[in-house]
Amino acid sequence: MAQTQTARPMDGTALARRIIETSAATAAELRLRTGKAPCLATVLVGDDPASVTYVRMKRRRCESAGIVSRHVALPATSTTQDVVDAVTALSNDPDVHGILLQHPVGPHIDERAAFEAIDPAKDVDGVTMHSFAAMSFGLPGFVSCTPGGIMRLLDEYEVDLAGKHAVVVGRSAILGKPAGMLLLGRDATVTYCHSRTADLPSIVQQADVLLAAVGKPRFIAGADIKPGAVVLDAGYNDGNVGDVDFEAAAERARLITPVPGGVGPMTIAVLLEQTVAAATLQLGAAA
Amino acid sequence: MAQTQTARPMDGTALARRIIETSAATAAELRLRTGKAPCLATVLVGDDPASVTYVRMKRRRCESAGIVSRHVALPATSTTQDVVDAVTALSNDPDVHGILLQHPVGPHIDERAAFEAIDPAKDVDGVTMHSFAAMSFGLPGFVSCTPGGIMRLLDEYEVDLAGKHAVVVGRSAILGKPAGMLLLGRDATVTYCHSRTADLPSIVQQADVLLAAVGKPRFIAGADIKPGAVVLDAGYNDGNVGDVDFEAAAERARLITPVPGGVGPMTIAVLLEQTVAAATLQLGAAA
Repeated sequence: MAQTQTARPMDGTALARRIIETSAATAAELRLRTGKAPCLATVLVGDDPASVTYVRMKRRRCESAGIVSRHVALPATSTTQDVVDAVTALSNDPDVHGILLQHPVGPHIDERAAFEAIDPAKDVDGVTMHSFAAMSFGLPGFVSCTPGGIMRLLDEYEVDLAGKHAVVVGRSAILGKPAGMLLLGRDATVTYCHSRTADLPSIVQQADVLLAAVGKPRFIAGADIKPGAVVLDAGYNDGNVGDVDFEAAAERARLITPVPGGVGPMTIAVLLEQTVAAATLQLGAAA
Repeated sequence: MAQTQTARPMDGTALARRIIETSAATAAELRLRTGKAPCLATVLVGDDPASVTYVRMKRRRCESAGIVSRHVALPATSTTQDVVDAVTALSNDPDVHGILLQHPVGPHIDERAAFEAIDPAKDVDGVTMHSFAAMSFGLPGFVSCTPGGIMRLLDEYEVDLAGKHAVVVGRSAILGKPAGMLLLGRDATVTYCHSRTADLPSIVQQADVLLAAVGKPRFIAGADIKPGAVVLDAGYNDGNVGDVDFEAAAERARLITPVPGGVGPMTIAVLLEQTVAAATLQLGAAA
């Protein structure tokens, strides 16, 4: 029997701060060297309050890190072609180095078509098909920000992934699927679970590394956490509640991300880091 | 306890024949309607005997199905740029509807760059990053031929995948990875295992659907097959031996693919079917 223990929290706030500080220093150095600051364009369709808040937060973080933020606000009535045109213009604009199209774009818009209008060289949010395949095949490219942030947390806490069983609960195109591919690329054995999975607890109980990415409050019971597991909670539900029952899980896990302050802050940090990396590549190529 | 039973074989030879017959009929109809036959271009770099044999077999099957076969033989000394140029020329040629670049292309060539020179609209072998992402996201596109053939076999034998645990052993870019994504798209719970997986038998034992795609003779022991499982063997090793110990596995499985005559014939059938589909789209668009 494994002894009852209290998990060490994985401090995403602190790691994100360090990544943003380093990105800010790189951005300043780039500006000195080329006379140009990295620029992230944000595209928001409509005025969904949560999306407005997210985009505002991302823009503020950019500006505080010396990244120019350019905002394109499109009305909720925009067509797919309107969004594709706006994104294509940004892809073709040499003063824009990274593009973030805030998800969701609305049910009447072909989100995939809109994402695919992003030049992969500017896909700092890691949402294009090219970026997904690059993540899956271990090729150069930008990663989806939340999965990328999760990998950074695992590295920060020196979690050895090779041969370990990583269970990903959730299979979205920007979170569960790419996270599983990144874990597979690091030699984990990877299981994808989802709403149709039969007997989820029996699979969760096998997880050396568990990623919860379903968006259902306390969906994963603490009793199902394998003693000594590493638990990553990408859920962020009403009332600052994650997808995992934190208190009960923390009694069994070795490492666990709190909500908030775990995975959440990492997403923006990776977005900023990748924007600076994109600008460095594009401005370097132009110099 | 499940009763000892003898598995029903999944007859890939018969299903492949039917798919090729249907493809031949569609090709003939297309030729009547447009005056043009579907055309598959094959590209072979060097003279590896196995690759020469595979390409010859594919070309013969094409011709017997009314698909024009155009062959490009490149010397083993070709550079990456040589191969990219040859493939790009085929991508731009309106008389070519599908392109197959025989794998492997040789260690000195950037295979990914060569694959990416294939226009996704002509990627009837399903090897481009675009095709992989399309398979992963459930979007329109061509599938990798062997994984596509496996899904056809599962459908032919009316295997219900939703909620079932599918275990994929092997994670190559053209077989294991896309097969897992297709199974996930059909609502299976999917586990990827590979050479670094710890305690492979314990995971294989959970598989309602097992796909062996490692290329090691009798790598999967019959005793590890879950009673009543569906076993797909994509291995094809020296002496007509698969990756699964067939005799022992057949005592426990419900359905199993023989080697040869299971998965193998399906690969070419899907290649031909997709070539005809590509030609139909391209000639339809041009008409």
